[in-house]
Amino acid sequence: MKENDIKNLVRPVVRSLRPYDAKEIPCKIKLDANESPFGFKGDIFRALKFLKTNRYPDPEAKELKIAIGRRYGISSENILVGNGSDELIYYIITTFGGPVLHPIPTFSMYGIIAQALGEKVIAIPLDRGFDIDLEKTLNAVEKEKPRLIFLSSPNNPTGNCFSAERIMKIIDASKGIVVVDEAYQPFSSEQGFLPLLRNYRNLVIMRTLSKIGLAALRVGFVIADAAIINEVNKVRLPFNVNSLSQAIAVAALKEKKQLSVFIKTIISERERLFSEMAEMNSITPYPSEANFILFKIKNPDDMYQALLRRDVLVRNLNDGIKGCLRVTVGTRQENSVFLKALRELS
Amino acid sequence: MKENDIKNLVRPVVRSLRPYDAKEIPCKIKLDANESPFGFKGDIFRALKFLKTNRYPDPEAKELKIAIGRRYGISSENILVGNGSDELIYYIITTFGGPVLHPIPTFSMYGIIAQALGEKVIAIPLDRGFDIDLEKTLNAVEKEKPRLIFLSSPNNPTGNCFSAERIMKIIDASKGIVVVDEAYQPFSSEQGFLPLLRNYRNLVIMRTLSKIGLAALRVGFVIADAAIINEVNKVRLPFNVNSLSQAIAVAALKEKKQLSVFIKTIISERERLFSEMAEMNSITPYPSEANFILFKIKNPDDMYQALLRRDVLVRNLNDGIKGCLRVTVGTRQENSVFLKALRELS
Repeated sequence: MKENDIKNLVRPVVRSLRPYDAKEIPCKIKLDANESPFGFKGDIFRALKFLKTNRYPDPEAKELKIAIGRRYGISSENILVGNGSDELIYYIITTFGGPVLHPIPTFSMYGIIAQALGEKVIAIPLDRGFDIDLEKTLNAVEKEKPRLIFLSSPNNPTGNCFSAERIMKIIDASKGIVVVDEAYQPFSSEQGFLPLLRNYRNLVIMRTLSKIGLAALRVGFVIADAAIINEVNKVRLPFNVNSLSQAIAVAALKEKKQLSVFIKTIISERERLFSEMAEMNSITPYPSEANFILFKIKNPDDMYQALLRRDVLVRNLNDGIKGCLRVTVGTRQENSVFLKALRELS
Repeated sequence: MKENDIKNLVRPVVRSLRPYDAKEIPCKIKLDANESPFGFKGDIFRALKFLKTNRYPDPEAKELKIAIGRRYGISSENILVGNGSDELIYYIITTFGGPVLHPIPTFSMYGIIAQALGEKVIAIPLDRGFDIDLEKTLNAVEKEKPRLIFLSSPNNPTGNCFSAERIMKIIDASKGIVVVDEAYQPFSSEQGFLPLLRNYRNLVIMRTLSKIGLAALRVGFVIADAAIINEVNKVRLPFNVNSLSQAIAVAALKEKKQLSVFIKTIISERERLFSEMAEMNSITPYPSEANFILFKIKNPDDMYQALLRRDVLVRNLNDGIKGCLRVTVGTRQENSVFLKALRELS
């Protein structure tokens, strides 16, 4: 069997995909991946003291669901935990199928996973203010009848929350499931969609621990009507969240004070970053409700490289959003190094 | 939106699925899940000392691939690591599609995942000796042209290795991919299919760390031609193996002596279990190359319950393989309790 033969065996939709480019660029100040600059200290691993490496994880992640439920005031039957939000997107699309609608630009995995699973993707450009284009979206909802709509709010990489009113109109109009991905909600001044879960049975809210200091764990979760949870649970792999991540997540969620300090510090640093960037002549930062800032600049490719030479890694989005880079909020010191470099280089 | 409306939104293939029944039965001696009775001691968690909880995992699991490669004498480009073998089955079916052929009885996840992904499943009963029914399988290969064949050898739950000659004939005859799942290979006296990888480009070997003391981690891996790895890698979620599991797996794979003792002890205990069970009048144990023993007994349901009352949990397979229970090899002491109970109850 030759290499060509192997390619011919691959489903055509997969054949045309490219592996996710996750090349690591060695760099001292890593402000590219929307990670928290604050991790939990080593003593968090004490939670593993009595963990038996030879036993399978709790397939229901019961303790973790209780810990999540306590934090968000919801019941375990409304929660499904995944190996990161990515896995939950996989499961949701496997459960409901396509067409899958999402705005663009947004988190890339909605489209990538839908494509890998052979589902049609409908990408509706955001309006000029980076908000949902309501008219085009409602038109597409009517004509194409998407079974799934993914709305990331606050949106990555633009940083803004979509208008709650527009989201509600879409949920009202849709005969399918609407997933509001609130990965960046902890950094937002808006209240998010949790309080609206009772009003909309086709609403699914997605959250993650990855942005609040626990990206290493891969723990995401969806919150939805128990009927939806039951259906998605059918395609969930029984032991999808490993024992170590379950234990550490439970321990970390108990550290309410520390989590709160992490989040508050990130928000205040984001505001400092924004106001200092706004004062620079050649730079236009966009207001952010997330843990990163999108900004426009004359020579984004050059600036990206120049920052890299100063050991500051940001995300170059010039391919998709012309003229834009995205910087994740780091520690105060990291942000200062970034600002200084930006000032000197621009 | 009513509950019925939600069900109607679900893809029909998923609607008819039932969630994996992973109910936990509290029991002192747990011999039901083919776990190793031996876990790594707490000091293995020292490997997490410098782990940053706030950073995403290495998406390529480079160190882990090197550690796996060293153990099996293969190169990283021939390895893909998954969140347990389950996830890799998901990916392999997403990549190549169906029809999916597997013998029956065998590991249930091949069929469950294929069904969830909407692929046709062809299940060919094993012959009386629990080996592959070569004639029926080759007929199905010719007529149905399965794009994927899953063969678990040693097979769960029967415990035997399939005839290597029959497997080779199937690989030769198949124009699709043949996955030989060697989850239980460490306990087998046969050499397995790794040395044959060069001869067959459509051969994929699946392995796991779950049976050798690390089920808590969820680390499985496939070994195959780089062209196959490249294709499956396209549907892999970028951060599918969390940082904690990567680090602990690397540390555990260095403990060669301990791993070797674990495995040797399990094999010798399996032999003791087998010979003592074989001496009991009303019990027929089947020879095993794995870390469990399938056995036939007159009243399997009663025996299952009676063992449970003595705090020994085994797997009741009477639904699928009439008259059979399956016992996982435990510690010497656990096995002795099981044998004593079996002797007194049968």
